[in-house]
Amino acid sequence: MTKITLLIYCKDRSGIIASVTNFISQHQGNIVYIDQHVDREQNTFFMRLESEFENESFSIDEFKTEFKKTLVKTFEMKWRMYSSDIKPKMALFVSKYDHCLYDILGRYNSGELYVDIPFIISNHKDLKPIADSFNIPFYHIPVTKDTKVNAETQQLELLRSHKINFIVLARYMQIVSSRLIEEFPNKIINIHHSFLPAFVGAKPYHSAYKRGVKIIGATSHYVTAELDAGPIIEQDVARVSHTHSIEDLIAKGRDLEKIVLSNAIKLHLNRKVMVYNNKTVIFS
Amino acid sequence: MTKITLLIYCKDRSGIIASVTNFISQHQGNIVYIDQHVDREQNTFFMRLESEFENESFSIDEFKTEFKKTLVKTFEMKWRMYSSDIKPKMALFVSKYDHCLYDILGRYNSGELYVDIPFIISNHKDLKPIADSFNIPFYHIPVTKDTKVNAETQQLELLRSHKINFIVLARYMQIVSSRLIEEFPNKIINIHHSFLPAFVGAKPYHSAYKRGVKIIGATSHYVTAELDAGPIIEQDVARVSHTHSIEDLIAKGRDLEKIVLSNAIKLHLNRKVMVYNNKTVIFS
Amino acid sequence: MTKITLLIYCKDRSGIIASVTNFISQHQGNIVYIDQHVDREQNTFFMRLESEFENESFSIDEFKTEFKKTLVKTFEMKWRMYSSDIKPKMALFVSKYDHCLYDILGRYNSGELYVDIPFIISNHKDLKPIADSFNIPFYHIPVTKDTKVNAETQQLELLRSHKINFIVLARYMQIVSSRLIEEFPNKIINIHHSFLPAFVGAKPYHSAYKRGVKIIGATSHYVTAELDAGPIIEQDVARVSHTHSIEDLIAKGRDLEKIVLSNAIKLHLNRKVMVYNNKTVIFS
Amino acid sequence: MTKITLLIYCKDRSGIIASVTNFISQHQGNIVYIDQHVDREQNTFFMRLESEFENESFSIDEFKTEFKKTLVKTFEMKWRMYSSDIKPKMALFVSKYDHCLYDILGRYNSGELYVDIPFIISNHKDLKPIADSFNIPFYHIPVTKDTKVNAETQQLELLRSHKINFIVLARYMQIVSSRLIEEFPNKIINIHHSFLPAFVGAKPYHSAYKRGVKIIGATSHYVTAELDAGPIIEQDVARVSHTHSIEDLIAKGRDLEKIVLSNAIKLHLNRKVMVYNNKTVIFS
Repeated sequence: MTKITLLIYCKDRSGIIASVTNFISQHQGNIVYIDQHVDREQNTFFMRLESEFENESFSIDEFKTEFKKTLVKTFEMKWRMYSSDIKPKMALFVSKYDHCLYDILGRYNSGELYVDIPFIISNHKDLKPIADSFNIPFYHIPVTKDTKVNAETQQLELLRSHKINFIVLARYMQIVSSRLIEEFPNKIINIHHSFLPAFVGAKPYHSAYKRGVKIIGATSHYVTAELDAGPIIEQDVARVSHTHSIEDLIAKGRDLEKIVLSNAIKLHLNRKVMVYNNKTVIFS
Repeated sequence: MTKITLLIYCKDRSGIIASVTNFISQHQGNIVYIDQHVDREQNTFFMRLESEFENESFSIDEFKTEFKKTLVKTFEMKWRMYSSDIKPKMALFVSKYDHCLYDILGRYNSGELYVDIPFIISNHKDLKPIADSFNIPFYHIPVTKDTKVNAETQQLELLRSHKINFIVLARYMQIVSSRLIEEFPNKIINIHHSFLPAFVGAKPYHSAYKRGVKIIGATSHYVTAELDAGPIIEQDVARVSHTHSIEDLIAKGRDLEKIVLSNAIKLHLNRKVMVYNNKTVIFS
Repeated sequence: MTKITLLIYCKDRSGIIASVTNFISQHQGNIVYIDQHVDREQNTFFMRLESEFENESFSIDEFKTEFKKTLVKTFEMKWRMYSSDIKPKMALFVSKYDHCLYDILGRYNSGELYVDIPFIISNHKDLKPIADSFNIPFYHIPVTKDTKVNAETQQLELLRSHKINFIVLARYMQIVSSRLIEEFPNKIINIHHSFLPAFVGAKPYHSAYKRGVKIIGATSHYVTAELDAGPIIEQDVARVSHTHSIEDLIAKGRDLEKIVLSNAIKLHLNRKVMVYNNKTVIFS
Repeated sequence: MTKITLLIYCKDRSGIIASVTNFISQHQGNIVYIDQHVDREQNTFFMRLESEFENESFSIDEFKTEFKKTLVKTFEMKWRMYSSDIKPKMALFVSKYDHCLYDILGRYNSGELYVDIPFIISNHKDLKPIADSFNIPFYHIPVTKDTKVNAETQQLELLRSHKINFIVLARYMQIVSSRLIEEFPNKIINIHHSFLPAFVGAKPYHSAYKRGVKIIGATSHYVTAELDAGPIIEQDVARVSHTHSIEDLIAKGRDLEKIVLSNAIKLHLNRKVMVYNNKTVIFS
């Protein structure tokens, strides 16, 4: 049996759902999940569909080709199609903080994440022992003003040679350059330690403390050229009070960061996220 | 233009979505919303669909008849179809607490609820001034052991003569009898002041205080024969601590109760709720 | 019996708590609540204390005088003392939105708020019927560019003649001028319909929609000269998704706004709030 | 400098706070934290106080002796006093689930927990590699009906020989017997995977699924003789819907369990918890 996940978007018009479901039916597919969304402001239609094909002679390549020739053309769709046979490859970038790394690797080890992690890249050596204890190759690529371009070249070589599908910045404390962003559009997941768009940039917990907010947050988003301004995938918050020092905010924040980032990774892995207009559609 | 909302459920099998979307297409309908759910344990398929028909000659009665003859028969569907033209009629039952009543009537007055409220029934006179200030007829029907059967007969007469579609128990402090429940199956919405199934029955805040819980809740559910055991529509919670007295829990609980109940009413009004197996499917 | 609430802050140093609790003891007071906070960054000490005096000869004025002569002088305290005998007077400012008004008046009517509401001021006539139904005088004071100064003079006259203690802007859609702010420092409570400091200014739900946030919020704060930048009293949030239109955000936001504003009013009324450094200490 | 944390409770009466703060003052202590609570139903007074003694000649033993002779006697206090010099010893009990173990050890490794972990006990071998990777001794003590008494004897010997202060059951899938409970009263912290008191006992996520709740929870509590009925330290919840299978609930629940358990451990370690009447006072 082959299982595919199909994501499409296009201009909204009458008959899209009927056409797509018919197409699946004609290919002996059984739709096991369908969800759709219409952005009325933009007049844009979004759909996520999972379908199973029990027919032994089913070929995903033929299916794709025909889908492209007919529906994609008719409705001028943007689309992606994933087979459940292929396990995605994720690269982890870290610096010195270990809480997100532990959380991701713990889940990975328990089989919670359907993903391969070919390596971890860090600009510091501190977290190498953790990578070792999970038997994941660890590349120490220091980044300074002078070596930044060079370091990125090394990173890109590793990413390309391992055919990495997407990157997770698990509290990687460097600004990622446009070369990486362009090569991995909407494929670099960052965790920012504030409730965006509040407290963009460095030291958000210090700013939150100064402003006297009663709730702090964490935000996972795709990285774009503008700092901390990419499409938001997931956010969560926690109550704080005047009794919390900056250190307390940082400690509480760590729990938010790791859960929010891991949730974002799971959404991405499960093909639940569509990006458009610098926002996300998150299917259920 | 006619807009319909269609809710169906049936045994899951291949081709349901394609058949239904095709059927709508053939009748020149434009699907503006589709959401589906499959309960794999029960092998049951659920769907909610909104469709617009711009054709002037469209007749909802003919559409229903044909839908029944074809799809309902083929897939042995249970189904409901609503036209957006018809505004539902809701009866309110109250006793002495006013917070849910104020919340509902405030929303009603602002146009937030697409509903008619032909009357309020209460076993006490206390809240009559509120009903008066919103210009809604108020019927005082006292309930004692001796008069209970008689009171219910009065209630039923009012409900029938006004063609009430559903009932909201806005902190109505009486147990509703089987006569009402049978006449309004999954059409009586109650608010219980605990996080069900914890603290079923009377005085849940007292029990929560005694148990020393750190979070309290409120639950809105459809009324069934078994007390506080009907299908849950909506729940919410709030943090509490040892510093809160029983009175504090009650005060905090009021805010939960009114928001949870009003949310449940809105879900019901928007035809987002399907009941099966004593549980609910809540469409987005 | 007299019950007092004492709020103090001063430079932190050794012996403050012992001195204050001793002073109360010497005056035959029984401390029923004490909570303290030290801001280590600012080296500032805060305390809230409730004490009961059963002695019939107890005079709050004498007690205040002696407290001032001794402890206030020694520790250079800023302080406030409230007797539970005196019910505060609150003025409500509204425009056209009614949800916060209904929520406040519903609580007021049920006795949940220990406060007098001598009047409601509005720059529109729309909500007069609600004021009438709760028997609260309603003053329609229109505000235009030309009449703004004049309108404020009228407002100030009403506030002074009724000896108003604090003002609540229950979705009052006008910027309050410095004259009012200076006369009521940290005594004007506003509700802003976003999770501050995100989305300062007008149309925050539109901005939240545009940014694609997954959580919206509401913030109650004291009004200061800088727009939406005053000390935060209370905040709360709610989850949203791509399925929510701007109108949905506005509707969901109303529920946040009314609960957050009412909670802030209760904290203020219960003398739980201390302001310093443009932040608040909120005692439990 | 010596820093002590003092926890007391006794019958409420006038003068306790003044007496204790005076006592500290007389010993040249500087109170850096004081919080108190009165349970009016039980007429019981609780206090938590932190004090620093800079005097080089300060002796905690003499201080304790005098405190006992004077205040403890006068007010018939129950009390505990901790010096910040002594690091507590915590034993971890696990079975096969690793998420709580990873979370605790990750925090331990980062220095977030001021505690020693002399060993991990498990009735299964599965998690030994994790213990190894953190360099913590791992004792495999299988438990069957026949060996239960024997296994407990081994456990007790380990606990005694390492002078363990408290035990954390990090998803230990065995019922702890009265011998351990009596030797460690209010010193065994468990995590139960439901929002207690809902869904006591085995398979709470299955019960939650069957009941159709819209929110699931996790509860950390001290273990007492009655199953899942001990004093609650911490609880948290997460929203779920009809789309979640039992497996989804279990996965979502894991995130709750690990955060709730780690929070409970931190509260216990920071001496923030007092138990009475099968409930907890949690100081801020």
